[in-house]
Amino acid sequence: MIKAELGREFFTTRTVAEALAGFRPARRTPAEPVPLAGALHRVPAEPVTAPHALPGFARSTVDGYAVRAADTYGVSEGLPGYLDVTGAVAMGTEPSVPVAAGTAVSMPTGGVLPPGADAVVMIEYTQQVMPGTIEVVRPVAPGEGIVRADEDAAAGASLVPAGRPLRAQDLAMLAAAGVTSVSVHARPRVTVLSTGDEVVPPQTATLRPGQVRDATAVALAAMVTQAGGEPAYGGIVPDDPQALEAALRAALPSSDLVVISAGSSVGARDETAGVVGRLGTIWCHGIAVKPGKPTLLAECDRVPVIGLPGNPRSALVVFRLLGVPLVRLVGGCAESPMGPPPEPSVRARLARDVPSAAGRLDVVQVRVADGVATPVFGPSALLSVLTAADGYVIIPGEATGLDAGTEVDVTIYS
Amino acid sequence: MIKAELGREFFTTRTVAEALAGFRPARRTPAEPVPLAGALHRVPAEPVTAPHALPGFARSTVDGYAVRAADTYGVSEGLPGYLDVTGAVAMGTEPSVPVAAGTAVSMPTGGVLPPGADAVVMIEYTQQVMPGTIEVVRPVAPGEGIVRADEDAAAGASLVPAGRPLRAQDLAMLAAAGVTSVSVHARPRVTVLSTGDEVVPPQTATLRPGQVRDATAVALAAMVTQAGGEPAYGGIVPDDPQALEAALRAALPSSDLVVISAGSSVGARDETAGVVGRLGTIWCHGIAVKPGKPTLLAECDRVPVIGLPGNPRSALVVFRLLGVPLVRLVGGCAESPMGPPPEPSVRARLARDVPSAAGRLDVVQVRVADGVATPVFGPSALLSVLTAADGYVIIPGEATGLDAGTEVDVTIYS
Repeated sequence: MIKAELGREFFTTRTVAEALAGFRPARRTPAEPVPLAGALHRVPAEPVTAPHALPGFARSTVDGYAVRAADTYGVSEGLPGYLDVTGAVAMGTEPSVPVAAGTAVSMPTGGVLPPGADAVVMIEYTQQVMPGTIEVVRPVAPGEGIVRADEDAAAGASLVPAGRPLRAQDLAMLAAAGVTSVSVHARPRVTVLSTGDEVVPPQTATLRPGQVRDATAVALAAMVTQAGGEPAYGGIVPDDPQALEAALRAALPSSDLVVISAGSSVGARDETAGVVGRLGTIWCHGIAVKPGKPTLLAECDRVPVIGLPGNPRSALVVFRLLGVPLVRLVGGCAESPMGPPPEPSVRARLARDVPSAAGRLDVVQVRVADGVATPVFGPSALLSVLTAADGYVIIPGEATGLDAGTEVDVTIYS
Repeated sequence: MIKAELGREFFTTRTVAEALAGFRPARRTPAEPVPLAGALHRVPAEPVTAPHALPGFARSTVDGYAVRAADTYGVSEGLPGYLDVTGAVAMGTEPSVPVAAGTAVSMPTGGVLPPGADAVVMIEYTQQVMPGTIEVVRPVAPGEGIVRADEDAAAGASLVPAGRPLRAQDLAMLAAAGVTSVSVHARPRVTVLSTGDEVVPPQTATLRPGQVRDATAVALAAMVTQAGGEPAYGGIVPDDPQALEAALRAALPSSDLVVISAGSSVGARDETAGVVGRLGTIWCHGIAVKPGKPTLLAECDRVPVIGLPGNPRSALVVFRLLGVPLVRLVGGCAESPMGPPPEPSVRARLARDVPSAAGRLDVVQVRVADGVATPVFGPSALLSVLTAADGYVIIPGEATGLDAGTEVDVTIYS
């Protein structure tokens, strides 16, 4: 109980914004190479540059004829120009014939521009008037109908930045450049420790009175995966400081982040703080958020540790707000806007008044249909409030509630 | 060329909305069981119901004392009520003492409510006045401080619906109910066929003149994965109808969807239509979208087939618009709003005028910073336009462009 008193006395409550801005552990996962096919959403450890110009050759962007643009100046439907067709470029091969004044070479989209040509006139603006001769009815400017040899990327140009999770098109660009292995941050290894004398594994078929299955761990692991981390289950630890200390000590060496879903009673929570405080430095114990107040942020042996509230709903809400950004930080993600994309959201109008106490951020679960967000209320012990919700609305700390009809951003669960 | 003429003549262009609403192949992947720990984002093939009530016992939601609510009626700071403490409930165990009139039992958050009690008064509103006796300074109503035995879910109630990808909290609810295996739709097997005489594998170190590396396949595979599918590479097929037909025939039996990134020239595209038309039924050849017009939708042997434009950028834009929803459909996802979450988006103001032709949907790539969306223009042959973009803006078919300053929804790439 002295620990509990200490915990209450020494650690002031922080706001979510303070926690996000202020709790910035230095740990980053090391770089490792991954093949391109497995690099989606991985975070480059350094910028990747183009080993050579792309596409590497001047290329037609249309089906038509490679020409000297000057040969088409002044032509029109009424006064076509005439060019001798001296050859044809085949896909994927070097042109065999250059383009001289007064001549044209047939081009497929994507073909190599022959020497001497500086534009490609679209087939739609030409007509074959006799074998080997076309008329051109529209002029082209130099550069028209082609991309330059370095227009997609100059040699040495940055193809993808460090710190931003790779997107599908980034993989395409790297493939185009022949980059088939990328140096990315290793996935942060996140150990999930569940605590509580009442908690038993999900596969427990029949519960004894008072027992509950561990609902939090599998959901935390899923969110870790979504954030780019690699979850590991640290098991279920009884409400006993020595057992928790042993489990935390065991987890630290193989973890980049440890998440403890703490026991739900005050005593159990303070025991967690006591153990974490012995093994490291507590940054805060208490966040001005509802649900989720009894959240602990700490660092032990250079490993960030998050202590979550005991009830599953609060634990999941807080982990989404504070844990997911931490997993990304440790995994090398840059800050927004060059970091990960925002979560999906929709605009909607509140169906009813939502009260909120000033001084704390409220996370209100809502269903969304037809542009209307209907709050789902219920004790924070109920998981069904979360499963019934499509997303959530944040009521900022300074607000004392929102009126029915207010337009809000609903972050949608994915 | 006759095929090309046929293709042009018989298949009218469809809008994106028509394609999404009208091209609805019947194919769905079969159900398969997966363990809960691997079920994130998997799509339940049927609703999952609670095998028993949850939490299964009336449970305290606070630290305090289990009481008969009637014993607290009328109490106040000035006129406390007094109760004899006859026992304490320990976490995860059955209460050993019932609550009789005039008595209270000490409760941890999450403990089992003893028989006879109908509420839990928070410890903050009590004080121990002598060993074995507390005073209570606030009344509680029946049901206060507890959740009922079936308040999270009644036995037989739906825990998760069919057709909606499982979210973290859904896994938590299933774990709480002891459901450790879920029947989900198998991941749709999506074969990606690349075509083009100029296309070589990404690992090709040195390109011969006119060759380009296959940029599209790896990005399509990534989008398939994001949509819940399982990509398979069908290889690179030369611009030759017989080779394409053989590759398509080979792919169909092991595919739930086939994606062909067709050659970029008119001839190559029409060859694709010819081959697909011989093996099945073409639903449309041509979509009113820029970029991406030469898109083909078909069904061969009950397998949906998408023929994409030849250049990588157009292919990726169209696959995101039409292919991703198809992968989800085949994979058993329900329609919005009970289906997958929307893609992330932000509101922003256009930095400049964006022209658009009426009658086609325009997909405009944009960078976003500080609430301003700046279009990224460039030939549709350039992948760098996509990699420079943070997201895209849709200009609907009926619009003839958007003015600078217009507030737009930017779908953010993830």
